[in-house]
Amino acid sequence: MPTPLDRAALEQVFFEARTAHKFTDQPVTDETLHALVDLCKWGPTSLNCQPMRLVFVRGAEAKARLKPSLSPNNADKTMAAPVTAIVAWDTAFFDQLITQFPANPNMRELFAGNATLAQDTAFRNGSLQGAYLMLAARMLGLAAGPMSGFDADKVNAEFFAHGAWKTNFLVNLGYPDPAGYRPRGPRLAFDAMARIV
Amino acid sequence: MPTPLDRAALEQVFFEARTAHKFTDQPVTDETLHALVDLCKWGPTSLNCQPMRLVFVRGAEAKARLKPSLSPNNADKTMAAPVTAIVAWDTAFFDQLITQFPANPNMRELFAGNATLAQDTAFRNGSLQGAYLMLAARMLGLAAGPMSGFDADKVNAEFFAHGAWKTNFLVNLGYPDPAGYRPRGPRLAFDAMARIV
Repeated sequence: MPTPLDRAALEQVFFEARTAHKFTDQPVTDETLHALVDLCKWGPTSLNCQPMRLVFVRGAEAKARLKPSLSPNNADKTMAAPVTAIVAWDTAFFDQLITQFPANPNMRELFAGNATLAQDTAFRNGSLQGAYLMLAARMLGLAAGPMSGFDADKVNAEFFAHGAWKTNFLVNLGYPDPAGYRPRGPRLAFDAMARIV
Repeated sequence: MPTPLDRAALEQVFFEARTAHKFTDQPVTDETLHALVDLCKWGPTSLNCQPMRLVFVRGAEAKARLKPSLSPNNADKTMAAPVTAIVAWDTAFFDQLITQFPANPNMRELFAGNATLAQDTAFRNGSLQGAYLMLAARMLGLAAGPMSGFDADKVNAEFFAHGAWKTNFLVNLGYPDPAGYRPRGPRLAFDAMARIV
């Protein structure tokens, strides 16, 4: 029977975790990126679908390709981050259900014949997976700096010319420099967001 | 500087965590539900927006209101679960940005004047918050049983007659009975979902 994680773990992932705007020079290695994916991939999704796609933009040349898509206030910190993950989804994710959800071999057709259902499922589950990525990063001692301030059409054109993958959001990754933290925003009270019936 | 959580914590949240289809009789108290919300609410969102809304369906009468919306294969296990969370989003989430993101008092108008941006932002961030909810539950020793197999229009009509909240997905919550676990689905290999550039 699982018991609550200790307070230090809850603090690292939620209570004291912060969005990082500045990172140390410590690189994020291939090994760490593989460990990150191998951890977050276990998060739950509907029908075990796995629409999330990731491009870890790390090299100077690749970073330069990303720069024109960024909002001015996100450009410098993203260029300086050790890695920027493009969190995307695959519009043809349902082609993989035959191997990922073998219990029902008819699932592919359900999505292939219903574009709205496919889009909603990809966006919902791709976003869940993006959240798993960020919390998994925190669990591994990394910090995440997610952003919606960029031009998704430009990122898609630059990185996904094939047209099948769509950008959801960006996440800077690295080891945090607390000097870059900003004042923490408030959160809604329980009664403003939840009820028990 | 954060360091990786120990292996047991990684197992509890990801490596060994399972979708629960059966729970023990141990109730989920008000205190636990408050602790769950107070933990997951700290997950990151864009502009500190907080579109997620939660209805914790726990009482027999409330469960009976939910039952007609469920797919046949989800009905019995959901009726038997200690709590079923309706994870929804508030279409008017941007009304709270003035208090939740005081750094820029013009953000409300950005969303109020752009229905597509508002919808995408609510769905994306409401889904991120739903993922935080599930992983926070696991961190507190609970198990989650998320579902997309239900009629969202029926849930909306029954629980959100005001029309402002929209159902995203459902999550059964409780203390797991491992007898209800199903064979674990596979996951995509790194190269099928990620690349480093």
